[in-house]
Amino acid sequence: MPRVVDPTTRRQELAEAVWRVIRRDGVERASVREVAREAGLSTGSLRHYFATQSELLAFAMQLVTERVQARVAALDLPADRRLRAEAVLAELLPLDDERRAEMAVWLAFLGQSLVDPALRQLRAESDAQLLAACRYLVAELGAAGEVASGLDVDFEAERLNVVLDGVALHAVSRPQQVTPEVMRAVVAAQLDSLRPR
Amino acid sequence: MPRVVDPTTRRQELAEAVWRVIRRDGVERASVREVAREAGLSTGSLRHYFATQSELLAFAMQLVTERVQARVAALDLPADRRLRAEAVLAELLPLDDERRAEMAVWLAFLGQSLVDPALRQLRAESDAQLLAACRYLVAELGAAGEVASGLDVDFEAERLNVVLDGVALHAVSRPQQVTPEVMRAVVAAQLDSLRPR
Repeated sequence: MPRVVDPTTRRQELAEAVWRVIRRDGVERASVREVAREAGLSTGSLRHYFATQSELLAFAMQLVTERVQARVAALDLPADRRLRAEAVLAELLPLDDERRAEMAVWLAFLGQSLVDPALRQLRAESDAQLLAACRYLVAELGAAGEVASGLDVDFEAERLNVVLDGVALHAVSRPQQVTPEVMRAVVAAQLDSLRPR
Repeated sequence: MPRVVDPTTRRQELAEAVWRVIRRDGVERASVREVAREAGLSTGSLRHYFATQSELLAFAMQLVTERVQARVAALDLPADRRLRAEAVLAELLPLDDERRAEMAVWLAFLGQSLVDPALRQLRAESDAQLLAACRYLVAELGAAGEVASGLDVDFEAERLNVVLDGVALHAVSRPQQVTPEVMRAVVAAQLDSLRPR
């Protein structure tokens, strides 16, 4: 008799299987078939969640977003707004193996979304979320007197957004040079550049 | 009787054919077969330059590097070092269709190089060239009094490098928001952040 599993539990189990496969084989080699095998399910029963490589990537990307959001929500945030911003931003950087795997998913998703229109909507949502988070952090820093009065919050949010992805990209591509220490220093320098002179 | 073509001319013809295919079909769809057809050659006679999709991408990436270097060499550089830096950096940004196509090649090459060890050496060289160019520009700005005395040239070169790729990435991914005007403003803000306070 087949197990009766509620949809939330099933999704969670699948998410864990997807992540194990990505961590073990790399996102470029994670296939629908391999995820089904890992989860002990038929490829047919995965259809509701993803049926193609492209949909698997979309599922993995949603997973990355959820993982980041969960980590940020679980942070024991310091009162100081500058330290708080650094703590939140650190969750978006590939500072350890888990976060490097997330970044690899993001990169694969980005590349695929440039040629696959079905992924564009999800990418637009994910881009908008990251930009909104940057805007929120810059506004918070502004409220704490950490942003020079002449600066435009939207533009500075865009700059921060750009730096985050640029540094993460270089960390994945040149891990020996762009170490966690360098990543943190680049983000700190970016926040410093907002300060009143 | 087959045409006798010297290797430099042949390479130049091939480079132009590769670029026409990339511009017309997109880098993701540019294939060895399509390039051969475009150049009016057999796939066999391309073997010396590239035999696989991966080698085609490496060839295209070398082409992008040569194109950027040729444009920078042809610049009528202003005497002012800050304006000079902005002029050189503009050649690295996807400010028009030609440079957007170059960026798409770079992105495809980067993605592929993460999973294909044969491309790593070329990527390391290309990374090193860009970082060296950034270091040169920061040093030039320093000589013109445009860099605060406490700043480390290597670190600031890395920051500039990161911003260039971050903004180019976002311009390809979110062209409506990260317009040429925004790109130039982000680079200008980055150079401003180096100035003595």
